[in-house]
Amino acid sequence: MVRTEEIELQTNGYCDVIDITDQLRRAVQRSGMNSGTVTAFCPGSTGGITTIEHEPGLLKDIPEFLEKLLPSDRAYHHDETWHDGNGFSHMRSALIGPDITVPFVAGKMTLGTWQQVVFLDFDNKSRRRRLVVQIVGE
Amino acid sequence: MVRTEEIELQTNGYCDVIDITDQLRRAVQRSGMNSGTVTAFCPGSTGGITTIEHEPGLLKDIPEFLEKLLPSDRAYHHDETWHDGNGFSHMRSALIGPDITVPFVAGKMTLGTWQQVVFLDFDNKSRRRRLVVQIVGE
Amino acid sequence: MVRTEEIELQTNGYCDVIDITDQLRRAVQRSGMNSGTVTAFCPGSTGGITTIEHEPGLLKDIPEFLEKLLPSDRAYHHDETWHDGNGFSHMRSALIGPDITVPFVAGKMTLGTWQQVVFLDFDNKSRRRRLVVQIVGE
Repeated sequence: MVRTEEIELQTNGYCDVIDITDQLRRAVQRSGMNSGTVTAFCPGSTGGITTIEHEPGLLKDIPEFLEKLLPSDRAYHHDETWHDGNGFSHMRSALIGPDITVPFVAGKMTLGTWQQVVFLDFDNKSRRRRLVVQIVGE
Repeated sequence: MVRTEEIELQTNGYCDVIDITDQLRRAVQRSGMNSGTVTAFCPGSTGGITTIEHEPGLLKDIPEFLEKLLPSDRAYHHDETWHDGNGFSHMRSALIGPDITVPFVAGKMTLGTWQQVVFLDFDNKSRRRRLVVQIVGE
Repeated sequence: MVRTEEIELQTNGYCDVIDITDQLRRAVQRSGMNSGTVTAFCPGSTGGITTIEHEPGLLKDIPEFLEKLLPSDRAYHHDETWHDGNGFSHMRSALIGPDITVPFVAGKMTLGTWQQVVFLDFDNKSRRRRLVVQIVGE
């Protein structure tokens, strides 16, 4: 059985880290399925999805780390193509990846107590985003 | 069809790299399914899952690389929140990611000859870990 | 329902970035399924799969970034084991990851307009590669 849902988000860009756990949890519940996998996917090449403990410290650590690793004020060849200044956003997205797949059992995602699924918007502007949620199970 | 299994591990923490390929292989066999996908997932925000050739050299290269990239002796904002000194563990987990999905065909995972699925425990202590294995197929 | 396909590629190695979107799209169409997930997987520990905008600038940015992060001319412990000089290839593969899972709806992958699925061959020689494509859905 397959059930598709969408998550709509308004983001600030610049490595905005947004907790999407509740939306995923509700999508799994609405599916009525007992067990399977839920895949969250970002249609776009300047976002990423992973899990963290969504607490204020890490919300600073992640942007600081990525700023050091792939600086936003450096020239990228990507910007020679489009001149939109978001080469760093594309690189961060390729590194973190646009997808995650989480098992669910007895209607609940098997996340740890302090673990949240987060969407990271790496773009250099605020964005309206639509994520795809695909639930496969029985 | 969906079948759920668990893998129990005792780890040393500090970027311990543990080969979980055999446990996954047996889980797929026990499912009796012919083809589908097996998803391994770490419920917790200080572990990661990926594939490597599990040989002694890379078991040194991976901790050395991550120590340089996200040092364990540096201050992270995360530690201001919890004072448990494992900010680096959380950052490495967010980077590597807590999940992997491997296809299986004719009851066998489609891994390369020199490719193993590994769990990486990034925490700063030994841990008892429970990974979730979700097999979806027919 | 599960359907397995393969993608055969000839690569140049050295961080060759190959767009596999069309092969995946056709595989989903051939499956005749309406909705589900498509998982692309690299059987081998010197390749990676992610998404990017496949344009000439990023095709330079990605190799440059990975060369800086995990240089090809540095000694790795892996090379002490095998003396094949591709320790950097293994490390990049473990970092980027060998798998991706993309939802499809109404027979079409839910990729963004400027987003392509790419295979990255990190090995230090040209390779003939075979990727596994697993389609699960209904």
